[in-house]
Amino acid sequence: MTDTGQLFAGVEMGGTKCVCLLATGPDDIRDTVRIPTTTPAETLAAIEAVLSRWQGAHGFQAIGVASFGPLELDPASPLYGTLVNTPKPGWTGANLLAGLTRFGVPVGLDTDVNGAALAEGRWGGARGLDSFTYVTVGTGIGVGSIVRGLAVRGLGHSEAGHLRIPRLPGRSWPGACPFHGDCAEGLASGPAIQAQAGVPAVELPPGDPIWEEVVQALAALLHNLVLTTAPQRILIGGGVVAGQPFLLPRVRHALVESLHGYGVAPAIAADIDSFVVAPALGTSAGPLGAVALAQAAGSRATQPI
Amino acid sequence: MTDTGQLFAGVEMGGTKCVCLLATGPDDIRDTVRIPTTTPAETLAAIEAVLSRWQGAHGFQAIGVASFGPLELDPASPLYGTLVNTPKPGWTGANLLAGLTRFGVPVGLDTDVNGAALAEGRWGGARGLDSFTYVTVGTGIGVGSIVRGLAVRGLGHSEAGHLRIPRLPGRSWPGACPFHGDCAEGLASGPAIQAQAGVPAVELPPGDPIWEEVVQALAALLHNLVLTTAPQRILIGGGVVAGQPFLLPRVRHALVESLHGYGVAPAIAADIDSFVVAPALGTSAGPLGAVALAQAAGSRATQPI
Repeated sequence: MTDTGQLFAGVEMGGTKCVCLLATGPDDIRDTVRIPTTTPAETLAAIEAVLSRWQGAHGFQAIGVASFGPLELDPASPLYGTLVNTPKPGWTGANLLAGLTRFGVPVGLDTDVNGAALAEGRWGGARGLDSFTYVTVGTGIGVGSIVRGLAVRGLGHSEAGHLRIPRLPGRSWPGACPFHGDCAEGLASGPAIQAQAGVPAVELPPGDPIWEEVVQALAALLHNLVLTTAPQRILIGGGVVAGQPFLLPRVRHALVESLHGYGVAPAIAADIDSFVVAPALGTSAGPLGAVALAQAAGSRATQPI
Repeated sequence: MTDTGQLFAGVEMGGTKCVCLLATGPDDIRDTVRIPTTTPAETLAAIEAVLSRWQGAHGFQAIGVASFGPLELDPASPLYGTLVNTPKPGWTGANLLAGLTRFGVPVGLDTDVNGAALAEGRWGGARGLDSFTYVTVGTGIGVGSIVRGLAVRGLGHSEAGHLRIPRLPGRSWPGACPFHGDCAEGLASGPAIQAQAGVPAVELPPGDPIWEEVVQALAALLHNLVLTTAPQRILIGGGVVAGQPFLLPRVRHALVESLHGYGVAPAIAADIDSFVVAPALGTSAGPLGAVALAQAAGSRATQPI
């Protein structure tokens, strides 16, 4: 059930704004509404008002919500659909789905990055693949992992931005992650780079030694993703990577060095430029991810198990 | 299709020996044959002779092969069923399945640790779970990951023993992994401990500082597994863990410290003794994994997709 002219409502919930799309797919977006993320009560009410208007005027088959996290994604949990222990003030415990049942359509929910990964698999840079990973390096580091066609989910979901990784010899800056200090996000996110450099990442010259540590952190993150979730391709974007064109080639090189010939490493090295790539959907991957989740929820509801 | 009295042939291929089981399940093992792992030609011929004898005398529904790796597991690859780039001398390129087609039954193949994980899910310590991880710390570190009911597979398979992890401050022993030096396996496998300590792990007193580094390495490995594959439980065994009863409690404590309250960490901390556990099937997990792979292959062959 893809792009057959049926409408889906996608809601991407971000830390600063939410994007609502009414669409059949990336080439047929009927409406886009942006809502600032303030308090849960205010923000969720504004989203529901948009959905009500769309339902009255056009109708839709299903709703997809792609949200920042951490999220409770276990449908068997009484907390299903709530934000769990999130660093974003005021949002821990907020239930993203409670107000959506009244629309009477299937509702899909996943993390923003799992949604973006599914969108890249459906319409973008991971078409035709079963196992792949989407990484975004911006205000944080988000990782969405698809394994054999399904988003990784179990006790929670991927939070691989917070992987423990080695430091470059001699580096001792403690890192910016409030939970883990010098995890990948604590060294290579935009705010981490700015905290260490004293200037925004975009103002830091390519030759600055801080970039060596960022490259090392991202390569170690990718090394660990290759060996845990066996992606056939890694899509990596976000403001830090997209804003510094020198970064992606250096991360590719450092990943090949780090894997050092083990297992699938020769296959990766032989084709590194198409193994680590920029996302094809760009900044649309997030909201289109919500549409992909809506489509998946609609499919599940209309197909026999 | 479990334990309905149908016989399955399981072959666990290990670095030093292969174990062949004819069984319906763990409580009904009809025959066990051990074969030393020498050259591919000799070892595979001996395994096929056992299977021929069993097929003539009893018959079996399917064959499962659980092997050391790295393995090519993509059925679309011309190299499907071969060992890829393995450190074990003489075995790179060996085809484990070519001689099995003549038995005319479905053949399942996966890594020894994915097989063991499936066996723990079917009969052992992970019954009832969809997403879980099996870790064995012995001559190497092997990790089998099940995500939403399926073994992780894509470009290759889990090789998470080789994750990049941070060192303890001030430690500079270069590690024993020929590929990565101080990856998890390079610090915490049995041979790595012996290489650093000068004595076998079992002779190293619990208070030796080397154990601090082993605990740190295993906790960082588990931290990274929690945040990449979202296991509902981690089963950890193998000679190093099973032989040192003080190790598992220290790894549990260090994992909780490392996760440091983020995301699912409070849920893990509240129930750490049942989140990180010893495997229930012990040393039988390996050969029973091969039987589980045979059962899965038999099910796929007889059920509609």
